[in-house]
Amino acid sequence: MIQITVIQIDNYGPWTVTPNPRRESDLQALQSRLYCDLNLQFGAHKGLVFYTRFDNLIAITNGIDITTHERIQNSIKNRYPFTVSMAVASAKTPYEAQKLATKKIQEHGSAQDEYRKEILDVANDFVFDNGYVQLAHVDINNITKTLTDLENAYDTYINVKEVHLKLMRELKKYGAMCFFIGGDNFMCPCNGMSEGDFINIFNDIKKSTGVELKAGIGIGKTAEYASNMADIGLELIRDGKTEYQVCTLNHENYDIKKKSARNFLCPI
Amino acid sequence: MIQITVIQIDNYGPWTVTPNPRRESDLQALQSRLYCDLNLQFGAHKGLVFYTRFDNLIAITNGIDITTHERIQNSIKNRYPFTVSMAVASAKTPYEAQKLATKKIQEHGSAQDEYRKEILDVANDFVFDNGYVQLAHVDINNITKTLTDLENAYDTYINVKEVHLKLMRELKKYGAMCFFIGGDNFMCPCNGMSEGDFINIFNDIKKSTGVELKAGIGIGKTAEYASNMADIGLELIRDGKTEYQVCTLNHENYDIKKKSARNFLCPI
Amino acid sequence: MIQITVIQIDNYGPWTVTPNPRRESDLQALQSRLYCDLNLQFGAHKGLVFYTRFDNLIAITNGIDITTHERIQNSIKNRYPFTVSMAVASAKTPYEAQKLATKKIQEHGSAQDEYRKEILDVANDFVFDNGYVQLAHVDINNITKTLTDLENAYDTYINVKEVHLKLMRELKKYGAMCFFIGGDNFMCPCNGMSEGDFINIFNDIKKSTGVELKAGIGIGKTAEYASNMADIGLELIRDGKTEYQVCTLNHENYDIKKKSARNFLCPI
Amino acid sequence: MIQITVIQIDNYGPWTVTPNPRRESDLQALQSRLYCDLNLQFGAHKGLVFYTRFDNLIAITNGIDITTHERIQNSIKNRYPFTVSMAVASAKTPYEAQKLATKKIQEHGSAQDEYRKEILDVANDFVFDNGYVQLAHVDINNITKTLTDLENAYDTYINVKEVHLKLMRELKKYGAMCFFIGGDNFMCPCNGMSEGDFINIFNDIKKSTGVELKAGIGIGKTAEYASNMADIGLELIRDGKTEYQVCTLNHENYDIKKKSARNFLCPI
Repeated sequence: MIQITVIQIDNYGPWTVTPNPRRESDLQALQSRLYCDLNLQFGAHKGLVFYTRFDNLIAITNGIDITTHERIQNSIKNRYPFTVSMAVASAKTPYEAQKLATKKIQEHGSAQDEYRKEILDVANDFVFDNGYVQLAHVDINNITKTLTDLENAYDTYINVKEVHLKLMRELKKYGAMCFFIGGDNFMCPCNGMSEGDFINIFNDIKKSTGVELKAGIGIGKTAEYASNMADIGLELIRDGKTEYQVCTLNHENYDIKKKSARNFLCPI
Repeated sequence: MIQITVIQIDNYGPWTVTPNPRRESDLQALQSRLYCDLNLQFGAHKGLVFYTRFDNLIAITNGIDITTHERIQNSIKNRYPFTVSMAVASAKTPYEAQKLATKKIQEHGSAQDEYRKEILDVANDFVFDNGYVQLAHVDINNITKTLTDLENAYDTYINVKEVHLKLMRELKKYGAMCFFIGGDNFMCPCNGMSEGDFINIFNDIKKSTGVELKAGIGIGKTAEYASNMADIGLELIRDGKTEYQVCTLNHENYDIKKKSARNFLCPI
Repeated sequence: MIQITVIQIDNYGPWTVTPNPRRESDLQALQSRLYCDLNLQFGAHKGLVFYTRFDNLIAITNGIDITTHERIQNSIKNRYPFTVSMAVASAKTPYEAQKLATKKIQEHGSAQDEYRKEILDVANDFVFDNGYVQLAHVDINNITKTLTDLENAYDTYINVKEVHLKLMRELKKYGAMCFFIGGDNFMCPCNGMSEGDFINIFNDIKKSTGVELKAGIGIGKTAEYASNMADIGLELIRDGKTEYQVCTLNHENYDIKKKSARNFLCPI
Repeated sequence: MIQITVIQIDNYGPWTVTPNPRRESDLQALQSRLYCDLNLQFGAHKGLVFYTRFDNLIAITNGIDITTHERIQNSIKNRYPFTVSMAVASAKTPYEAQKLATKKIQEHGSAQDEYRKEILDVANDFVFDNGYVQLAHVDINNITKTLTDLENAYDTYINVKEVHLKLMRELKKYGAMCFFIGGDNFMCPCNGMSEGDFINIFNDIKKSTGVELKAGIGIGKTAEYASNMADIGLELIRDGKTEYQVCTLNHENYDIKKKSARNFLCPI
């Protein structure tokens, strides 16, 4: 089971244009600061937040209880010109969990309802030791040499966005999600997926676009443990220490589990 | 002429994994803070920055001279665990300008060259009064009712990303760019494009996806003036005060220029 | 027992002038950001940090373990151009605890030793349920009417600094400390002091300077609980609901303990 | 002439306790972030801000016009849960300038008037090329060896605060101000003071307390130029390249002006 929190700025759109449209550089500064703060504050409890649409964010929050959510929500109110609503849900797959969480937040009214404020609700159960997070840290092989140092900045950007969209569409079939985390890096909550699934997806993408991908896959009780493992797995691939372009590490034993492409990853 | 600055963190990839991979929530906090600061600092001089890939950013910098660039570059070195390189270029279209700027930065070495540090170079001329910025602020009609309040957060996100990619591809044909600025909003540097061009693109996207778009288009001597005008134009459309889903305002006269769909916008 | 953490930027002075003195507004931005982040990150675990000298900070950390300290230390390294060292100690009084913590950090070398980096050490025991934090939130009666709205900004500032120094000197006699927290507010870690002690100090200060002070005193297992109680106590005094200019609240029972001026506060 | 801006958070005190007292670590984070942002935003135009009481700040703003003030004020409103008021004044001495600025802000109502919002007013003239900033960067000789590495953190802090108060009192006699900028450093706006004045003050402080001080004094058209010069002056003293513990540099000629202790500094 993975636990997902959906975070939504309350009635944000109307605020940005009241009484007049606010300066765009200020809004970009404000939104990125919120994202920064949420990562520091959920990160303090081993969670991880993705910026998604900036006014609607998705976080992995295994191990983080309702009181901690409430304290973070409170801290935002204490320092920002707006409030945020949050809903928490758990499920076997990340996609399903965010779906339940979104539904819960929607039950309380519209994102642009001026009276809906600081909702904090829970769809089902919190996940502490009874679950795990599985994260794939995906990157593009040799992007610096093949794109960044060769192509213009915008075309490289388009390339990365195309890969992102392809990954989003493919991973959704497995109930997994894919978030861009900068450079040529994607972080994919993917509970239940196997190394073989990733290898198949990467092969398809290579065939249709020529872009080669690799993934460190990490498993742990929290988003932080899982992403640490995913990062180390990716380093092992970069160092040529793995057979495939996929490498899975589990925080519980911290051993490299060399899996045949067909094996399922997660005996947890 | 529009002036574009390409900003690149020096040798960032290797740093993120030395000596070991750094905590992901910290990296997300760090990158978003850099984006926040760059918007405040370029924003202080009426520029506007887009996060693009977070380690490679694109800014509109009409009216901002080399000394100001150097001071911002310096300020980043003084407060961050890394340095940034910058290259400035101007051209008739935004796409062309970023291309020239990227080339200039690439001449000094690889993004992952450990000796290339704090490059600050200029491809051609700075743009002060001899140019203008044209920005289209595009959003999706009625997204709160049709997506945010109905669909799950991740599917809405995918929808927005699909629109983004479509806009990127279409606008590139005109030498324009498209950046996501949160929610359902896109900011498109688009010097030289007409209202008719946007109406055509929006019609095509509506036909192929059902998604309806609108755009406030702003023209001004700086990114700030242009984006202010674009925002006001968008408000006029939202308030039903325009004939078409596109509305152009020029900061110089601050009048609504009702254009037939075929007219060209920019007599500047 | 109260637990204090002393935090020191490693070799900061030399860094600020290498290779040349860095822009002062950047240094002020950097130092205040560190203070901000430390409060968010220790605050996420119910701690509280005081800026003290900005390069040497003092935090109340009851209930915060070594791993959390290490994670915060790590997060600073991941996002700042410098590292920090930390030492933790506990004692019956705040003054004694910071003294032990400072000694521990000094054992590892000079603040300007270029090789001493990221020390994390503990003088004695961590305090979880076996201790408490006592905080007095002191402010100046009616400062807005008597100073802020009447005097010039700098003279008001001098007045507040004079009160601060007086409080520091008086409270030290009791093993307590006093930190400025903005406006006319002081936060005083003061385990073991009675309401009577504060009343005596306030009377002396009134006699010698004419300035009238009041204090909400809070007791709790963590800095956050204690400061919350102190804040509520101060509000009760402001609302005229107390007999004296001192009001103590204990988070455990959350009852107003009306004490005669002679009674000792802390039966914990 | 020096130009000073007094900045005041509107109706801040009441906000911090409405509806209930807000978490102290959040307030500290919020106030220090405001200070950070103001330094970045005034710093972008070569100004310098001092935190003073955090809800009342004092800035040196030579060369910064009304529009830039308004843009910064606007940016704060766009990103914070409160607004700020500002008043600008110029005078021969820094003390006199802040006095005029404070008076101007007070004319508009109380700091805790709930209807007084976002005042922006000017007492007299803006200072562009018709003036200069003189800043003394004062520090304590050898504090690391004599205090930081020997004494406990809090006693060192008290020592520094005592020096601060002494400097504030002495400098006020000359119409100068003194702000703590971290570590053992003080920044003193001191238009019109001579090196001899500082040498006399330092001698007095040495006699009464044993603490030895030194000062780099910088003169320039803006706070940034002046503080850069002050920093370089201080480095020259540290390197033993000056006769006295005071060294003045003027940004216009960037030469070391070795003055006899009796000479006046500022022919500007």
